[in-house]
Amino acid sequence: MEEEMRIEDERWMELALSLAESARGQTSPNPLVGAVVVKDGQLKGSGVHLKAGAPHAEVYALEMAGEEARGSTLYVTLEPCNHYGRTPPCTEKTIRSGVKRVVIGSTDPDSRVSGEGIRRLQDAGLSVTVGVLGDRCDRLNEAYFHHRRTGFPFVTLKTAVTLDGKTAAPSGDSRWVTGPAAREEVHRLRHHHDAVLVGIGTVLQDRPRLTVRLPGGGSHPLRVVLDSTLRLPPDTPVTDVREAPTWVFCTDRADREKERGLADRGVRVVRTGPGPRVNLRQVFRRLGEEGIISVLAESGGELNASLLREGWVDKMMVFIAPKILGGKESPTAVEGNAPGRMADALSLKEVSIRSFGEDFCLTGYPKKAEKGG
Amino acid sequence: MEEEMRIEDERWMELALSLAESARGQTSPNPLVGAVVVKDGQLKGSGVHLKAGAPHAEVYALEMAGEEARGSTLYVTLEPCNHYGRTPPCTEKTIRSGVKRVVIGSTDPDSRVSGEGIRRLQDAGLSVTVGVLGDRCDRLNEAYFHHRRTGFPFVTLKTAVTLDGKTAAPSGDSRWVTGPAAREEVHRLRHHHDAVLVGIGTVLQDRPRLTVRLPGGGSHPLRVVLDSTLRLPPDTPVTDVREAPTWVFCTDRADREKERGLADRGVRVVRTGPGPRVNLRQVFRRLGEEGIISVLAESGGELNASLLREGWVDKMMVFIAPKILGGKESPTAVEGNAPGRMADALSLKEVSIRSFGEDFCLTGYPKKAEKGG
Amino acid sequence: MEEEMRIEDERWMELALSLAESARGQTSPNPLVGAVVVKDGQLKGSGVHLKAGAPHAEVYALEMAGEEARGSTLYVTLEPCNHYGRTPPCTEKTIRSGVKRVVIGSTDPDSRVSGEGIRRLQDAGLSVTVGVLGDRCDRLNEAYFHHRRTGFPFVTLKTAVTLDGKTAAPSGDSRWVTGPAAREEVHRLRHHHDAVLVGIGTVLQDRPRLTVRLPGGGSHPLRVVLDSTLRLPPDTPVTDVREAPTWVFCTDRADREKERGLADRGVRVVRTGPGPRVNLRQVFRRLGEEGIISVLAESGGELNASLLREGWVDKMMVFIAPKILGGKESPTAVEGNAPGRMADALSLKEVSIRSFGEDFCLTGYPKKAEKGG
Amino acid sequence: MEEEMRIEDERWMELALSLAESARGQTSPNPLVGAVVVKDGQLKGSGVHLKAGAPHAEVYALEMAGEEARGSTLYVTLEPCNHYGRTPPCTEKTIRSGVKRVVIGSTDPDSRVSGEGIRRLQDAGLSVTVGVLGDRCDRLNEAYFHHRRTGFPFVTLKTAVTLDGKTAAPSGDSRWVTGPAAREEVHRLRHHHDAVLVGIGTVLQDRPRLTVRLPGGGSHPLRVVLDSTLRLPPDTPVTDVREAPTWVFCTDRADREKERGLADRGVRVVRTGPGPRVNLRQVFRRLGEEGIISVLAESGGELNASLLREGWVDKMMVFIAPKILGGKESPTAVEGNAPGRMADALSLKEVSIRSFGEDFCLTGYPKKAEKGG
Ligand SMILES: [Zn+2]
Ligand SMILES: [Zn+2]
Ligand SMILES: [Zn+2]
Ligand SMILES: [Zn+2]
Repeated sequence: MEEEMRIEDERWMELALSLAESARGQTSPNPLVGAVVVKDGQLKGSGVHLKAGAPHAEVYALEMAGEEARGSTLYVTLEPCNHYGRTPPCTEKTIRSGVKRVVIGSTDPDSRVSGEGIRRLQDAGLSVTVGVLGDRCDRLNEAYFHHRRTGFPFVTLKTAVTLDGKTAAPSGDSRWVTGPAAREEVHRLRHHHDAVLVGIGTVLQDRPRLTVRLPGGGSHPLRVVLDSTLRLPPDTPVTDVREAPTWVFCTDRADREKERGLADRGVRVVRTGPGPRVNLRQVFRRLGEEGIISVLAESGGELNASLLREGWVDKMMVFIAPKILGGKESPTAVEGNAPGRMADALSLKEVSIRSFGEDFCLTGYPKKAEKGG
Repeated sequence: MEEEMRIEDERWMELALSLAESARGQTSPNPLVGAVVVKDGQLKGSGVHLKAGAPHAEVYALEMAGEEARGSTLYVTLEPCNHYGRTPPCTEKTIRSGVKRVVIGSTDPDSRVSGEGIRRLQDAGLSVTVGVLGDRCDRLNEAYFHHRRTGFPFVTLKTAVTLDGKTAAPSGDSRWVTGPAAREEVHRLRHHHDAVLVGIGTVLQDRPRLTVRLPGGGSHPLRVVLDSTLRLPPDTPVTDVREAPTWVFCTDRADREKERGLADRGVRVVRTGPGPRVNLRQVFRRLGEEGIISVLAESGGELNASLLREGWVDKMMVFIAPKILGGKESPTAVEGNAPGRMADALSLKEVSIRSFGEDFCLTGYPKKAEKGG
Repeated sequence: MEEEMRIEDERWMELALSLAESARGQTSPNPLVGAVVVKDGQLKGSGVHLKAGAPHAEVYALEMAGEEARGSTLYVTLEPCNHYGRTPPCTEKTIRSGVKRVVIGSTDPDSRVSGEGIRRLQDAGLSVTVGVLGDRCDRLNEAYFHHRRTGFPFVTLKTAVTLDGKTAAPSGDSRWVTGPAAREEVHRLRHHHDAVLVGIGTVLQDRPRLTVRLPGGGSHPLRVVLDSTLRLPPDTPVTDVREAPTWVFCTDRADREKERGLADRGVRVVRTGPGPRVNLRQVFRRLGEEGIISVLAESGGELNASLLREGWVDKMMVFIAPKILGGKESPTAVEGNAPGRMADALSLKEVSIRSFGEDFCLTGYPKKAEKGG
Repeated sequence: MEEEMRIEDERWMELALSLAESARGQTSPNPLVGAVVVKDGQLKGSGVHLKAGAPHAEVYALEMAGEEARGSTLYVTLEPCNHYGRTPPCTEKTIRSGVKRVVIGSTDPDSRVSGEGIRRLQDAGLSVTVGVLGDRCDRLNEAYFHHRRTGFPFVTLKTAVTLDGKTAAPSGDSRWVTGPAAREEVHRLRHHHDAVLVGIGTVLQDRPRLTVRLPGGGSHPLRVVLDSTLRLPPDTPVTDVREAPTWVFCTDRADREKERGLADRGVRVVRTGPGPRVNLRQVFRRLGEEGIISVLAESGGELNASLLREGWVDKMMVFIAPKILGGKESPTAVEGNAPGRMADALSLKEVSIRSFGEDFCLTGYPKKAEKGG
């Protein structure tokens, strides 16, 4: 019977997960959460957290259930909140609604919440089950959890290479490494991240817009440019902030005149110290403070090398096109200085591979990502 | 781009389908419906129809979306209603909400709705796409559509047999043909159907309760017993209507005294004509009129033969246990009179097979199910 | 390195298994055996046992290898023979050829061989590895091993039923329960068995030929008819022994005149005792003695019941057609007397399912097959 | 019946293919061939071509069949030879053996054979079916067919890279890019090829042996070193020809003294023209003339670039390790000069991917491989 109950719990948590996942890219700095109310094997309510400031998933689900919540089971992908924020705590609403059992996917790493929600529910006499589809619920909010734990955003380094590891011709031309399906997936990744990050070199070379073009539309991420001496031209697409906001991080060496020019266009300029390079720790601390929990780095080989060397990369996504470019001078995905021995390369774990049209995307997590700087 | 839009549409319809499917067994006589509101690639609202009398799926989804519905796309598994029933038409609410595109899975076979909803939306200037995941949306509501078209409930004949086709020992003992996983699935099937149907023979032999015992609870179906002469004993579990209602269909020959006895216990007795057997057409007409759209027949070989011969069976589910009972006198799943030639057997189409523990369940649809009687 | 060696061994044993399997149906009463000689990662010889009296698989493989056998590894699906039979022992040939390592799938249950071959090789200084792909090698020769252990043939009961367990209309008509793909598979099964077995009822009802009709031809099995009182008509196809031999087992009650008539046509008649029924133990003992190691029972429900009750069935293959025949009087696959309770049904183990066109075939092994009689 | 015959033919051709495939790496300059003789659905003989000079596959199969070949079907992966070479033509042996039908996988591109074998068989009254599992039979001998058509060996370029496209640290250290499973596969590839090819840079950097170390042993390929000025040191592993032969291709500029020194050690030195680089066309022409039909290039980035630019690469195999090395100075798999635009990269077709331990191997064929030089 216990095994059967577990299967039953997983069925309903699956629905809560589908709801939560469907809001990816829109809830930051809040986590993705889905909730379902069930009584006597019947669905009584469903909810999902849509965006910061909007009701929590539990609220929608419990209100949809109404009187039926009494005696029901609440399935929620993340431990309910127990603190008074923009909304009253979901624990109280759950208790008041008469729910008798709460099934939770992940516990909340937020120190204001962690375990508190569960304790509050148990103290009120509710039965609480934790960890149903727990790995998937944790993975769902990997960015949020990382941000809560460290204060820094979760950084996904995305790159696209030929089979021989090239990202562009020596001329800088990179149109296109991958095919349409992979490129659409990149737009979806942007839609799912709070910010995209590039170096000034990429901006000068490719003049990217860094916005989302998807068949059904999408939400543009914050565009972050690292540009130590403010070489950013006033007429390049990312300085047009009508589409999406742009922040430029520079050093104290940057020219004040140039800064004013960018500010006049609506670009936010942030100085990160004496230089000569932009201080990455300052960049990510600042982004984290501003509630940016996920960053998609679409940067070039030199910046990628710095991000990796200093341990800022939390996840790698490498799109591989089945083609050969060649060229000793062709840029590669990660440059900078290599370790002296192959044995010191950075290994990835939890590696998976998917195909997009003719291309492949290999995803993994660096084995040790200690923050440096 | 059209292909990409289709993929995008299918992603969102998938969520609407998950929501709709989760309410199986609780919406009758209404259809299962899920709805999702999306703008700029972002989820703005989700809804599901929970039960007759409750708001339609679109209402929840549009109210969750609020102002964000303006300019959005509404995904809904079934054509929105366009008539004034217990609730105002969803078409009007959709139009007033400012939705600009509606993506529909199935069209509604209800003559009051069919195509009307789509026309109303188009007349109001909305873009309408029909048939996204259409086969799955149609299958989702196979019972509802059947009931709408014919007025009769959709009948699923479920049986459980040994590998040599036996349903019980000659003594009648049938505990258990299949293992726990298959038996739990049968309880889930009951939970998903409006009514279960058995003959008096099964009631006398097995003294079944015909209720739902699932780890998370469930909703008991109406119990329908065919009993031409009212042999139903007053002390058998199905006459205890505290758990679930029971209707008995008999012939005009049935004893009035017995009828009163049953009625006193709360059992509803319905006479279907002169006999000698219960008139199946009367049974299903009456059930259909009462809003019973799905019936799970858990009947024995003789009644199964009648149901099949008269064309009442819309779907077959045969659980097969990998065991041999033997016995010329052991009852089989379908008895009655056979056709003279094997070539005249009733073929099933769209056959699929699943495993439940050590058992298998083969599902299919009779190739020609013309209603007779 | 050990793991890598195992993978390497399995690669070569896979080839030996393919060769052995390809001779199914033609080696009786000998086992199926394939052999491969490998040196320095190179194939040096391959062989397969084709039929009784022909060279053993090892002989072909070692002769193909010639001088290259020196220092090689011999892969063989079954322990090499160590006794002087129609051919000198393969162990001696292996040793003389200079083979230095022997990799074996199954050990031979033959008391004249079991372990003796391995010991002889080891005594001569060869390295011996046993059990590579051992389960598959054992399954390959399940009939041979059974015959060696018990003296009786391995009996596979094959039947074809509708979804409601019927094998024919009450009239006896059974053309056809299953479709062409399943029927071709039955012909292949006949080709793979030494004998097919039916009761006189089936012969009188269906007038079967019981021969093999496959697109590439095949070898007809011995046809065995159980016919206690010699009702076999002289003009039915199975009495035409020009296509294939036919044996009839009867009781001592059978008429001498009839026996002579059949004998004159070339049919062999065997008396099995006083009766009233044919003594199954006598039948299978006699078949086993005559070197029949595999029997495909294509019998009807009564004979099937006897075979199962007395524990003669070693394997079940049930073809299930997705159709409903119905009929209380329609015959089923296993009749006779049933046990009083469903809990006493005979369970199958190691159950697998395959599809043939629209039909399914479920295969399994009775959980306890103790020989009775 | 035709469909059923095709399925039957494919079953037997599958066995012939398994036999042929098992001899990979040992038959050069001859093709891989497997043969099977079948009569009445029974295996009568099996054979495989083991090495140049040894009997053809058909010979073994027909001799094993003996008298049973009369009236049989011969399955052979490649059109039987019809010319008098080291052995009399297989067509004649087939005809004399009384075979009545021949089923062929691939036709032979050898101009002395192509279609001639088929015509000879047909003229003699045999039924001939061509193309059964034809694609797989063609792929089996892709190297042989290429060599027959062009006179040049089939060149597979194999490389191993990190996820960011690096083959070594800037120091040259490359131990190890991939894990044990991928490295074992490389040894298997060497075993399957007639020759491995490297540039002098790789020899100086890595001091490779380029031999086969597999758990079951293997056959060492010819080692080919491209070394324009004979910088090859006398004491590096590849100059030790006791394990395997080594050929060095240089230019006319190479020092005669050095050449003599290498020749004294048993290394063969071949001059390919005035230079300054080794003339690849001369290299491959010479290898082709010497009967080398398959070459595995395990070369570095510069030589790989030349091989690709001049169109010598027929197949690419890229092992990808899920790790990041980084380094602007780290060598990559293909260097030389890149085309000016990404759109001019060389695309691969028929791409497939396999995993080896934690690594992946992506295989494909360059879309246009026109020979240059
Ligand atoms: Zn909350
Ligand atoms: Zn509505
Ligand atoms: Zn032997
Ligand atoms: Zn030949």
